[in-house]
Amino acid sequence: MPRLAIHRLSMAHPGDLSELAGLITRGALRAGDVRAVIGKTEGNGGLNDFTRGFFTQTLMLLLAEHTGEAPARLAARIPCVLSGGTEGALSPHYMVFSVSAEEAPGQRGLALGTAFSAVTPAREIGRIAQIEAVIAAVRAAMADAGIARAEDVALVQVKAPAAQAPDPAARSGDAKVLMALSRAGAAVGAGVALGDIPADRVTEAALLSDLSLFSNRVSISSGVEVTCNEVAVFGYADGWAEGVVAGVAPMTDLLDLAGVQAAFAAAPGEVLGVIAKGEPDRSGAIRGYRHTMLGDTDIDAQRHLRGALGAIVAAVAGDGRVFVSGGAEHQGPPGGGLVCVFVRRSPPP
Amino acid sequence: MPRLAIHRLSMAHPGDLSELAGLITRGALRAGDVRAVIGKTEGNGGLNDFTRGFFTQTLMLLLAEHTGEAPARLAARIPCVLSGGTEGALSPHYMVFSVSAEEAPGQRGLALGTAFSAVTPAREIGRIAQIEAVIAAVRAAMADAGIARAEDVALVQVKAPAAQAPDPAARSGDAKVLMALSRAGAAVGAGVALGDIPADRVTEAALLSDLSLFSNRVSISSGVEVTCNEVAVFGYADGWAEGVVAGVAPMTDLLDLAGVQAAFAAAPGEVLGVIAKGEPDRSGAIRGYRHTMLGDTDIDAQRHLRGALGAIVAAVAGDGRVFVSGGAEHQGPPGGGLVCVFVRRSPPP
Amino acid sequence: MPRLAIHRLSMAHPGDLSELAGLITRGALRAGDVRAVIGKTEGNGGLNDFTRGFFTQTLMLLLAEHTGEAPARLAARIPCVLSGGTEGALSPHYMVFSVSAEEAPGQRGLALGTAFSAVTPAREIGRIAQIEAVIAAVRAAMADAGIARAEDVALVQVKAPAAQAPDPAARSGDAKVLMALSRAGAAVGAGVALGDIPADRVTEAALLSDLSLFSNRVSISSGVEVTCNEVAVFGYADGWAEGVVAGVAPMTDLLDLAGVQAAFAAAPGEVLGVIAKGEPDRSGAIRGYRHTMLGDTDIDAQRHLRGALGAIVAAVAGDGRVFVSGGAEHQGPPGGGLVCVFVRRSPPP
Amino acid sequence: MPRLAIHRLSMAHPGDLSELAGLITRGALRAGDVRAVIGKTEGNGGLNDFTRGFFTQTLMLLLAEHTGEAPARLAARIPCVLSGGTEGALSPHYMVFSVSAEEAPGQRGLALGTAFSAVTPAREIGRIAQIEAVIAAVRAAMADAGIARAEDVALVQVKAPAAQAPDPAARSGDAKVLMALSRAGAAVGAGVALGDIPADRVTEAALLSDLSLFSNRVSISSGVEVTCNEVAVFGYADGWAEGVVAGVAPMTDLLDLAGVQAAFAAAPGEVLGVIAKGEPDRSGAIRGYRHTMLGDTDIDAQRHLRGALGAIVAAVAGDGRVFVSGGAEHQGPPGGGLVCVFVRRSPPP
Repeated sequence: MPRLAIHRLSMAHPGDLSELAGLITRGALRAGDVRAVIGKTEGNGGLNDFTRGFFTQTLMLLLAEHTGEAPARLAARIPCVLSGGTEGALSPHYMVFSVSAEEAPGQRGLALGTAFSAVTPAREIGRIAQIEAVIAAVRAAMADAGIARAEDVALVQVKAPAAQAPDPAARSGDAKVLMALSRAGAAVGAGVALGDIPADRVTEAALLSDLSLFSNRVSISSGVEVTCNEVAVFGYADGWAEGVVAGVAPMTDLLDLAGVQAAFAAAPGEVLGVIAKGEPDRSGAIRGYRHTMLGDTDIDAQRHLRGALGAIVAAVAGDGRVFVSGGAEHQGPPGGGLVCVFVRRSPPP
Repeated sequence: MPRLAIHRLSMAHPGDLSELAGLITRGALRAGDVRAVIGKTEGNGGLNDFTRGFFTQTLMLLLAEHTGEAPARLAARIPCVLSGGTEGALSPHYMVFSVSAEEAPGQRGLALGTAFSAVTPAREIGRIAQIEAVIAAVRAAMADAGIARAEDVALVQVKAPAAQAPDPAARSGDAKVLMALSRAGAAVGAGVALGDIPADRVTEAALLSDLSLFSNRVSISSGVEVTCNEVAVFGYADGWAEGVVAGVAPMTDLLDLAGVQAAFAAAPGEVLGVIAKGEPDRSGAIRGYRHTMLGDTDIDAQRHLRGALGAIVAAVAGDGRVFVSGGAEHQGPPGGGLVCVFVRRSPPP
Repeated sequence: MPRLAIHRLSMAHPGDLSELAGLITRGALRAGDVRAVIGKTEGNGGLNDFTRGFFTQTLMLLLAEHTGEAPARLAARIPCVLSGGTEGALSPHYMVFSVSAEEAPGQRGLALGTAFSAVTPAREIGRIAQIEAVIAAVRAAMADAGIARAEDVALVQVKAPAAQAPDPAARSGDAKVLMALSRAGAAVGAGVALGDIPADRVTEAALLSDLSLFSNRVSISSGVEVTCNEVAVFGYADGWAEGVVAGVAPMTDLLDLAGVQAAFAAAPGEVLGVIAKGEPDRSGAIRGYRHTMLGDTDIDAQRHLRGALGAIVAAVAGDGRVFVSGGAEHQGPPGGGLVCVFVRRSPPP
Repeated sequence: MPRLAIHRLSMAHPGDLSELAGLITRGALRAGDVRAVIGKTEGNGGLNDFTRGFFTQTLMLLLAEHTGEAPARLAARIPCVLSGGTEGALSPHYMVFSVSAEEAPGQRGLALGTAFSAVTPAREIGRIAQIEAVIAAVRAAMADAGIARAEDVALVQVKAPAAQAPDPAARSGDAKVLMALSRAGAAVGAGVALGDIPADRVTEAALLSDLSLFSNRVSISSGVEVTCNEVAVFGYADGWAEGVVAGVAPMTDLLDLAGVQAAFAAAPGEVLGVIAKGEPDRSGAIRGYRHTMLGDTDIDAQRHLRGALGAIVAAVAGDGRVFVSGGAEHQGPPGGGLVCVFVRRSPPP
């Protein structure tokens, strides 16, 4: 019987995986059991954030040392979803998702499945090719986990590729726009795979444009350090150990404190990890009052967003170890987002 | 009988006081009744934030036009406390505090008194001279309001001076440090005037150093656009109209959601204005988890802080019109801060 | 006989015009003679740079005080071209261009003429309407100066409008893009008026796209603090006093030190003012080596550009009082720019 | 006979050493011959710049793969001096200094020697312990190169340690100040070793304070990614191959174009590498005109400095592959700096 475990670890800098090394060395975690890593590094979260690549390189070297598998092979099967930017109250940390086999009768519990699409070149980003690749990858990840139905999925997390180099055939010459198109393509693909977005309404033109297409169960980051769509699906499946539960709730806008609290209320217990997505409201206002995130020449809008959203979620969660990622296009309602909480379920009183 | 009124107004940019002009023009507010203005402009909040000076110049011109008093004279009697930086969810806005005379029997209500110290040159900033000037100004402002006892004070708000130009006789050659010393000097002075800080423990060396000296009822901003200590005191006094109430509560750390909620719970009613102070925890961690606000080369620590604190308070308040100011030295516990809410009291059910 | 004079003045902050006030007070300059002001304020140069508006308001108040003319009327006839951002070696300063009448026989000298277009609403920015408005304004400014032929023009300086508020009819919903379109529209209009750009090749689609259309004698800034196209034209005309000369030269790329030196060589004498335009090479490389200006999440590309270009020009000029403005679309060759030097001509040896 | 070779290589990102890998693979460079690496990565150059660590990790892995030596051992003998920040015209690049043995009679040429001090804990930074450690390391590096006399030294390049973690015994609790103290300690130590700074004037209090103590032949960077003082000394020694020459000249201030040109004039030939140091003038002015580098809340002073200095040097050098590092305390006159050019000497005409 597979059992999903979540270790939430801190780091002194983006190349510091000493806490994970310690777990492995003292036998608390088998390196070979690691199935996915989701974390926040202290970069700027933008095009020129290399803390993600630094962490990934260090992680794969560490796992290679303990598994004997080559770093490149590990990187090709373990999704490493990093979001740069620990603005404000956020704390650099990473969640290590591992699956171990137990000698025990199968129950029904939270399952994890992963899949990688083929390499997505710049010219496919934000195009039907990417959307279809993500649909297929989400389905493959569900199958990997043994999740039978779309409604059993709690969360799909994707790390989507950005362009490594300018490509005249790309949908946009602006690397930042291409990064947003990549998030949009992956979000819409995942939304279709879950049945949250009707396949017949999906067009390339709808990406970043028709924001009525969204899923509340999809979280996407994009970055230059990945070249394909890396997918991790969390959901409930037969045959998996009980114990870990996920609570997910949408946020209708950035200040939706009740939405955050709803996610935590849906999954009472010891918090093992928190994922939140959001975005600066494009209208330039929240609840009728002007915000200044989109027009600041000195601080990037996503850095503003993460600082604000991260603080609200951290205030509810109780500490700053919250994975907050900006760019929530098609992931929750426009101007809003979502919160997902992983907990060790409290035993019934 | 004096009656305190609070108008909370938005602006399209730091030189836009059209909402205030509209109130005056259509008779909803007498220009001569304006006693203090507290607001957030969309600058960076640091040494080179000129949005505060731009707003102040525009405000005094507008009031001069309607009162016939010279701008310089108005600026010398109306505290204009501006904090730059509307990071994240915050919305540029300003609170206009006015006092009108009513033909009615005196009650007991929230009163406002103001006072200005003499010009504080750079060499007196963060020195006993400034502390004593602020003690005297707070007492003068209390007398101005008719607030009889220190325990009747809800909040002291001070705009403290920063150095206009380098002065070899100043306590620090670093303008940013001098700005912090000015906040510290004003906070400790106000704390002594309120009886929250024992006078016999106050030394120049204690500023920015002995953080056990603090008051939970003191909020300080500093800036190069003022040259003396401008003081506004809010508290309860006989002979003032009822209706407006203030709720104040400390925050023990940046994530103290319960502290924020306590301030709002202490003053139920229609929110007229919100003031919050906080600071990045100097230990480099919040509740044991590392934050990165103090070591970011690209975003100033106070900008990080305002984005995070502002979002938490705004999430509770319901919108982004929250006056959030960083640099909370001696204003609340180390790493923490305070929240003050002004409301129109709900009538008893 | 009109005589053009240039005073280059420093400021302690964007609201400090004390040096100009001093000149006027002690009779060195008549307030009524001021015809144009071009300066650098220490903001960020972007959408949320309010140092330009602060300076303009203060300037017009000062001139109003000394001329008796209303600030709004002065602002409608005196071009005030400010560029925010004094990165690196640059020094905040402003050039005051004044024209006085002399009792003397007419010679042939550097002339200044000004003109304002009608208000340009957001929907006309970057459209034929703006281009035609600028063509007409440049011609009007030439006529104002008495400059007979386009080849006698040394430099056209335009302050072009940005959108005050979002307008669904605008060419772009991105305020930053609209700001670039405004620079492009004004540059192309001025280039057509000078005969440097063939009118029959001008289309709306060519703006920001066909960069083979450019003039080496055109310098444009745009900003939210202006609502129409403010034009100042410098050139040689009969009947103007001798003495001041302009040297202009193109820069083929950002590192074109020889180009900068050529502008100074073309006008030997005491430097009265320097204007430079440039832009980050869109190819992402300069002379084959990658630059990082366009992909930095933390420092805006134009801030990078001004710091680099400003230092090179200042190193040749001898000090940091150089007007450097980014966004050189259609103003010089792609990736390059131009330098214009005003000098008091050295007497022949 | 040892021969010093310099390869100047570009990178697509801080983890991209493919150009070096290519040289090694096709036999143009033996991995075992690499003696030092000096480069610019595209980070922010401050405390939270992890591009340096990422590059170093990748470099040592690459060399390990080709030499069979462990990465940690390579890192302990090959100085890897990285400066983050490619502002403005600068281009990310690195210089690989290698020494190969030739079967040829000894001549007299440019030599390279290296040495590492013992680990320097935070409490020794900016203290006599660090200064003495650097003096010893510079002497060891000279001996390693066979450089007989201090006057034969062209340049000492040091990578000095910053604190990995707060230490109450450190000279400053401010990590940024400690970083500056580390540069100062290393600069003064190297200056003493060269005889440019009199040993009897050196005290801990003089660091960052008595700026009349300086050497024009010393360039220091500091960073959290190193834990000891890594020293590379370039100078002329018997028995080394001819061909490579270094030209060094001081800059009296940031705009000292003649100083930059003097360094290039001193070493005519094909440019192999350029090193420049400088700093924002602490007086707040350059040649009497105010600069704004030291008071900008949004752009770090060193980022301003590198953008400006880098552009001037690159304009003379001809492209952006210039190693520019800020923080020039005790390395050249106050407000100034130095330039060092490595060239392949032009054959006599």
